[in-house]
Amino acid sequence: MNVHDLALHTDKYQINMMYAHWFHGTENQKSIFEAFFRKLPFKNGYAVFAGLERIVEYLKHLHFSEESIAYLAEQEENYDPKFLDALRNFRFTGDLYSVEEGTIVFPNEPLVRVEARIFEAQLIETALLNFMNYQTLIATKAARIKQVAPNDGLLEFGTRRAQEADAAVWGARASYVAGFHATSNVRAGMLFGIPTKGTHAHAWVQDHDTEEEAFEKFAEALPDTVTLLVDTYDTLKSGVPHAIKVAKHMEQRGKRMGSIRLDSGDLAYLSKQARQMLDDAGLNYVGIVASNDLDEHTILHLKSEGAKINTWGVGTQLITAADQPSLGGVYKLVAREKDGGYVPTIKISGNPEKITTPGFKTVYRIVNKQTGKAEADYIALVSETDVREGGRIKLFDPVHTYIHKFVTEYEAQELLKPIFVAGEQVYELPSLQEIRKHHEEQKNLFWPEYLRVLNPEIYPVDLSQKVWDMKMRLIHEHHGADDKK
Amino acid sequence: MNVHDLALHTDKYQINMMYAHWFHGTENQKSIFEAFFRKLPFKNGYAVFAGLERIVEYLKHLHFSEESIAYLAEQEENYDPKFLDALRNFRFTGDLYSVEEGTIVFPNEPLVRVEARIFEAQLIETALLNFMNYQTLIATKAARIKQVAPNDGLLEFGTRRAQEADAAVWGARASYVAGFHATSNVRAGMLFGIPTKGTHAHAWVQDHDTEEEAFEKFAEALPDTVTLLVDTYDTLKSGVPHAIKVAKHMEQRGKRMGSIRLDSGDLAYLSKQARQMLDDAGLNYVGIVASNDLDEHTILHLKSEGAKINTWGVGTQLITAADQPSLGGVYKLVAREKDGGYVPTIKISGNPEKITTPGFKTVYRIVNKQTGKAEADYIALVSETDVREGGRIKLFDPVHTYIHKFVTEYEAQELLKPIFVAGEQVYELPSLQEIRKHHEEQKNLFWPEYLRVLNPEIYPVDLSQKVWDMKMRLIHEHHGADDKK
Repeated sequence: MNVHDLALHTDKYQINMMYAHWFHGTENQKSIFEAFFRKLPFKNGYAVFAGLERIVEYLKHLHFSEESIAYLAEQEENYDPKFLDALRNFRFTGDLYSVEEGTIVFPNEPLVRVEARIFEAQLIETALLNFMNYQTLIATKAARIKQVAPNDGLLEFGTRRAQEADAAVWGARASYVAGFHATSNVRAGMLFGIPTKGTHAHAWVQDHDTEEEAFEKFAEALPDTVTLLVDTYDTLKSGVPHAIKVAKHMEQRGKRMGSIRLDSGDLAYLSKQARQMLDDAGLNYVGIVASNDLDEHTILHLKSEGAKINTWGVGTQLITAADQPSLGGVYKLVAREKDGGYVPTIKISGNPEKITTPGFKTVYRIVNKQTGKAEADYIALVSETDVREGGRIKLFDPVHTYIHKFVTEYEAQELLKPIFVAGEQVYELPSLQEIRKHHEEQKNLFWPEYLRVLNPEIYPVDLSQKVWDMKMRLIHEHHGADDKK
Repeated sequence: MNVHDLALHTDKYQINMMYAHWFHGTENQKSIFEAFFRKLPFKNGYAVFAGLERIVEYLKHLHFSEESIAYLAEQEENYDPKFLDALRNFRFTGDLYSVEEGTIVFPNEPLVRVEARIFEAQLIETALLNFMNYQTLIATKAARIKQVAPNDGLLEFGTRRAQEADAAVWGARASYVAGFHATSNVRAGMLFGIPTKGTHAHAWVQDHDTEEEAFEKFAEALPDTVTLLVDTYDTLKSGVPHAIKVAKHMEQRGKRMGSIRLDSGDLAYLSKQARQMLDDAGLNYVGIVASNDLDEHTILHLKSEGAKINTWGVGTQLITAADQPSLGGVYKLVAREKDGGYVPTIKISGNPEKITTPGFKTVYRIVNKQTGKAEADYIALVSETDVREGGRIKLFDPVHTYIHKFVTEYEAQELLKPIFVAGEQVYELPSLQEIRKHHEEQKNLFWPEYLRVLNPEIYPVDLSQKVWDMKMRLIHEHHGADDKK
């Protein structure tokens, strides 16, 4: 099975719905879906959108191989052979608009909008969410870690605890988007051009008669990238003194040791002691890398205790987003073709925050011209022109509607960019360096209160009056329909 | 990049250590590594080993493509061209012994044992742990869910929240190993022959003028697999009555509706009401499927409240193992070649449970001949013959050594089976059905106290006297070495 053969990376019910549409001749009916999430992960104030490049590659290569079609035919007797022919000719021919990777985003705003034949829009839901959910989750977790250690080295070290091979590489990429500096995963390095970093394992030390011999030999072999792991037997009594001896030998050969690495024990205490020992030996250029189940909380505490750590190797907690290992992104029908036009659609729920916002919409970031800071995100119908033209708009809270203000001196940045139009890719994928830079710049758009790790302010995501009115009308229509029963 | 091109699915430091060994001419030195985990996930009493098939496929195809070698050459100036030639000729030529998939396993016992040139044994660590950790984690989570609903239908529904594409398919496979009945992921179905199941989405209902029309049309298209999602507008006022109407129409055409699906709201209340409504309409054959962030705890509670649910669709909580999204499996050097023989190695740690157990070992399951139940797992040196021959052995707690007993009437089942010998695969991979059956049978080996979901008894994993003595000797040698400094 080819790596690009992801047509079946979907839920069975998508294929069943495609079949049911085909059966009734409605497969070419146009539909508009929006992907968004309802709740921020980790009690963070924002998320970092990622996953678009993966989605673009998926859509470009999306087709049903004969192997896939044979499988489907054999699984489901109900499937008509002519339906299988329709799959054979399947290509993505719709429009896809998306937020750019690295952009800071918020709940309940469209991150990806698909306008396509229902036949296509339905199939792609599962993969699109799978890709967006994971990379956005990890980029957001990485951004939190970056927030507490903005000037330190940050290494992604999680592969052995990642949830299988794809998570390792796409998670490494998402971390890099949010400001990490390198990954230990060599495949991620090759696939995406991320710098790779590594030290050595305890096994290297155990595999020699003495720790000192192990260190000397490692430094001889790799004199330009030496980081020595000092905790195999005893960090301060054995590991650090041996590392110092080796660093001195390296100096005699005109080389400089990079760092030592601490991987267990009390990292605050050990790093301070090790720093002192290194400095006393005239090795203030040797850095200290720490690892061992780190996350933004442990790093913040270690820093507040004055730990002398320059570089953090972050594994399990980052690559699995351990404190909340999924982002609940969803993909909802907001309009459907009827009688040659679009009618808005809604999903009602007993749970008010699960009611969808209907209509063919887009989202603008309203940036105050005086401060250069974002004031709110503003969801409007694509057909609304006032905000696009910089006219006076009303920002109001969609739940507590009395909270409102009017703004005029703003720049409206449309967040959704055209990626595919009529099935053609119209967006040039930025390099990973550009995405990283874009993310870094995004942070300047926001007041720090929105970005802090603990108890951030809630950034406003507002609806235009027209969208709000449309939503209320549809809710009442459905309640009315209920009352009649 | 080919899907089998996983040579670089490793940590940078493995390649660095391979280089350092090559540099010093020690790359052919033999080594023995063991993979094991120290702590059970989810406070469960056991884990379900999985991931071997993935490891076997990885090792069979393991080689460095020219593309990979060119990448490494460009990344690291220190690498000698002759080292790159050694990579070009790289194949796995070692021995690998492993527990079989579906086997019930415990902490601190070897699950995979690798005997190979250090050059090879080092490279494969990362991928081996990545594969073993994820599938074992998910199989264990699935086993817990199976434990609370042993006679119900269990569907894996997690793809859109899985941590990328690989996690979706390998997680579906692991769930099936532990007794789930189907997955929604069509690719997993095709790759592994797992049955696939699906209903329809809210979008199907929203995409029609009325819910009733949507249901009728779905049932017309797929009359043999109809499950209707009844909560788009209002479950009891709208969804269930419409489903009943459609079921009656189906009966007129000689067809039977499969189920209805509840996806929100109070599942205990709604399922009881819906069951009553279906039964009153003479539709007792129509099942009820429930989904919505379920796990073993919610399922247990719903069942205790008398929920009338036949089938559980389990998504996020299972596919990400949300309450503990990683298994901390490690891979440790236990012996190394020296002067033509093996010397045992140890890793000391301030943390006593992190001290490794040295030596070239294997593990036996000691099954009482009278009861047919497992008494303990027993870790012995490969060279020890008494247990293999069924002789009298002493079982004692490796921490509280005064707790002991002697056993004679037992069958010793060696858990580690030869998979590769001298690089040749000697193990025929069982079918997924056989693995599932093996897992089911494994459960009969254990008293229920070890298998329960809450507060299970701790199953004994013991060391032979020889292994214990060797460990103590090495600990003292290293402490002695410390004292001399």
